[in-house]
Amino acid sequence: MEQQNLTMLTDFYELTMGNGYFLKGVGDKIVYFDLFFRRIPEEGGVAIAAGLESVVEYLQNLKFTDEDIDFLRSRGFDEGFLDYLKNFKFSCDVWAVPEGTPIFPNEPIITVRGPAIQAQFIETTLLLLINHQSLIATKASRIVRAARGRAVMEFGSRRAHGASAAIMGARAAYIAGCVGTAATCCQPMFGVPALGTMAHSWVQLFEDEYQAFKNYAEVYPDNCVLLVDTYDTLKSGIPNAIRVFDELKPKKKGIRIDSGDVAYLTKKARKMLDDAGHQDCQICISNSLDEYLIRDMLLQGACIDSFGVGERLITSKAEPVFGGVYKLVAVEEFGRAMPRIKISDNAEKVTNPGYKKVYRLYTEDGGYAFADVVCTADEPAPAEGDYPIVDPYSAKKYKRLKTFKAEELQVQVFKKGELVYELPDIQTIRKHCQESLEHLWEECLRFENPHRYYVDLSMNLWNLKNNLLDNYPH
Amino acid sequence: MEQQNLTMLTDFYELTMGNGYFLKGVGDKIVYFDLFFRRIPEEGGVAIAAGLESVVEYLQNLKFTDEDIDFLRSRGFDEGFLDYLKNFKFSCDVWAVPEGTPIFPNEPIITVRGPAIQAQFIETTLLLLINHQSLIATKASRIVRAARGRAVMEFGSRRAHGASAAIMGARAAYIAGCVGTAATCCQPMFGVPALGTMAHSWVQLFEDEYQAFKNYAEVYPDNCVLLVDTYDTLKSGIPNAIRVFDELKPKKKGIRIDSGDVAYLTKKARKMLDDAGHQDCQICISNSLDEYLIRDMLLQGACIDSFGVGERLITSKAEPVFGGVYKLVAVEEFGRAMPRIKISDNAEKVTNPGYKKVYRLYTEDGGYAFADVVCTADEPAPAEGDYPIVDPYSAKKYKRLKTFKAEELQVQVFKKGELVYELPDIQTIRKHCQESLEHLWEECLRFENPHRYYVDLSMNLWNLKNNLLDNYPH
Repeated sequence: MEQQNLTMLTDFYELTMGNGYFLKGVGDKIVYFDLFFRRIPEEGGVAIAAGLESVVEYLQNLKFTDEDIDFLRSRGFDEGFLDYLKNFKFSCDVWAVPEGTPIFPNEPIITVRGPAIQAQFIETTLLLLINHQSLIATKASRIVRAARGRAVMEFGSRRAHGASAAIMGARAAYIAGCVGTAATCCQPMFGVPALGTMAHSWVQLFEDEYQAFKNYAEVYPDNCVLLVDTYDTLKSGIPNAIRVFDELKPKKKGIRIDSGDVAYLTKKARKMLDDAGHQDCQICISNSLDEYLIRDMLLQGACIDSFGVGERLITSKAEPVFGGVYKLVAVEEFGRAMPRIKISDNAEKVTNPGYKKVYRLYTEDGGYAFADVVCTADEPAPAEGDYPIVDPYSAKKYKRLKTFKAEELQVQVFKKGELVYELPDIQTIRKHCQESLEHLWEECLRFENPHRYYVDLSMNLWNLKNNLLDNYPH
Repeated sequence: MEQQNLTMLTDFYELTMGNGYFLKGVGDKIVYFDLFFRRIPEEGGVAIAAGLESVVEYLQNLKFTDEDIDFLRSRGFDEGFLDYLKNFKFSCDVWAVPEGTPIFPNEPIITVRGPAIQAQFIETTLLLLINHQSLIATKASRIVRAARGRAVMEFGSRRAHGASAAIMGARAAYIAGCVGTAATCCQPMFGVPALGTMAHSWVQLFEDEYQAFKNYAEVYPDNCVLLVDTYDTLKSGIPNAIRVFDELKPKKKGIRIDSGDVAYLTKKARKMLDDAGHQDCQICISNSLDEYLIRDMLLQGACIDSFGVGERLITSKAEPVFGGVYKLVAVEEFGRAMPRIKISDNAEKVTNPGYKKVYRLYTEDGGYAFADVVCTADEPAPAEGDYPIVDPYSAKKYKRLKTFKAEELQVQVFKKGELVYELPDIQTIRKHCQESLEHLWEECLRFENPHRYYVDLSMNLWNLKNNLLDNYPH
């Protein structure tokens, strides 16, 4: 369903530039691009990488059809360039941080090395896939954390930004810890459990609420979750649910409340259900939820077993943009990667130049990740003893590390266009996400004003960057 | 590219309910659903309908594959129901407001009449398509209006929520008045012009900025738009652009500024360009724009010819959710549509019951639309003379209209599952959108605190609704 050829979903300027590179004889020049982001949505402490599987599919399916070529011809592109596209064979190297990994600003999430036309061309779609899926994984992770062990179900398809947003958003939410989704196709596609029971229309369609509930319990005696707020939750919905539970004794039973004040209603509902002997009835909530509401409702003693979360998750409503960018960082001259930099009046927008690697540093016992360090690719990996890491914005802020463990964050995914990475299955990704978060300090996981996790530079990279800056006219 | 079979992109509960309707013998009961929304994003004065073409494609492609059936069998659905799905033939009637039409809260945008299983089943995908595309059309319309005649280009693919969001979002933006998009595929797919020139990487790839600009002007002498902010807009970018314009004399020339204070920079840039004799050089701006920024920059005298708008348009960042819902409004008994209502503690959440029609009322000369009126389907169309329209929340607030013109808003799209509507081409839709907006009072088009356009009820519908409410126990 999602196995589309997205080749032509590229910004037109990638083609304008590709055509220009071709005509200026630099189309095959080897260049390096970094995909990175500058800030975490909602000023959060950590983001979650997602989208790599889609990127792999995209790159493997890159192909211009005859119709594509005809269209581009009509837009005036050079025949030589059109020939190049007709015979397009993806031949770049790609390194990437695996899906489910916690990621931080200003470190390379994906690095691409290859011919200028190709490495440039894939910009739009790489960004689109990584930005979208990391956005949703990041938001879902916050919501799952707020639920403190209770199940969170992704229920947002109807408010998603189109089909891919619903489908790939549900997958990203599952990676981040949701237990399933309403979007049916995600189960056969990805193994994300499809979940759901009834809408208000079920209740409205039958003579009355009691009859609607009874009908449902008869059809679904093994998993009878009744939506109790169509008419009046406390006066009608819950009494009718209890009556049906008493009469039909379903094996698993639950109620869902989709409106009203949840803290109040769930406490009342819990008492009514318990008093009627239905301590095993689960209470599910689904009304414009997000991490803040979930946290506050639980703090107020709301009696909730599971959450159905819709629009605020699937659109990351509070901040619906993940600001990943894709910047040229080096150009090979005579076989050597010569670093390039993009200047800006804003120090935080100056890029980290050159072909680089990024390492996550853990405490000696491997318990906690305490910093990432971005290095030039040609320097030795960080090693214990007396290893300096430097704040990117101030040479005065540096640390000398004695004992730590370093782990390279990116893996190689494509080698000269060939896939060399075995895509993990979704359960592995989900587990990797959960376990990786356990290696972060709680302080980084706060929703508001979290501890800023360090992404420092190696001394080598710091010097390289500042030498380049000094050599630009001001 | 977007011609996918979205059948299984449905909330799982549509299937749970369908299976239940089937087993309870009400699967073929004829029911009516309304798709409507309750408020306009950003408290705006008007929304723009979009997504109907996608809905038509979706409904025409509805089909369960053998794999779908196998999956649903594994989830325990009844064999009789699976047979029903295997032979699924869409047979509903569908009425809808055409794309590009200004729409308002609490009026039916789409009405579906058909067998309960079918009319229920399509809920998720109808909502997903209409919500997403109407959201983007609504936002784009605001941005286009703010630009007051200047060109607005949709540049947001990289921040869109996946492939469909980029593609269908670009189409919606064009309907609402954008002049084109960066998303290349939208031109061959829809005839939306694909636009774009260069990124910072073009400038970085060559020896220096001057050489990069010169190379571009040589390749594109007919349309030479140079991105001038890679290093320093005023000290380097614009002087280099002027030098290249002087030397190579491109036919059409422009500069693009993607950072910094746009009001300040464009005034300076305009003067530098004019002083150098390049009065014909266009200035394009593209840095986190939305309708508020565009309005304010123009008020401050910024010298801008066109806008490239990215993330804030394609995600409707300020409010990324269009809250369309799909509610059961009637069930046929003995061939008559018996109205159903959904109660809520919140008066604004009580549904308008029954099978209905909606009319737009214009001043007698046809100049201005001044109200919409929702009627029961079986009453006569609103007619001049002494026609009362009632505020939905207060019987005391009503008007008696003497002279007006009434136009039915919905058209029939499917008749017993057959398409009976000729989908207009995109230029027609775009023109319809622009012309329809011209029939609204300026006061409705304000961004902040706009005049609330009236969506009133016919006396008949008002009585029906209140009779139903009186008959529910409180």
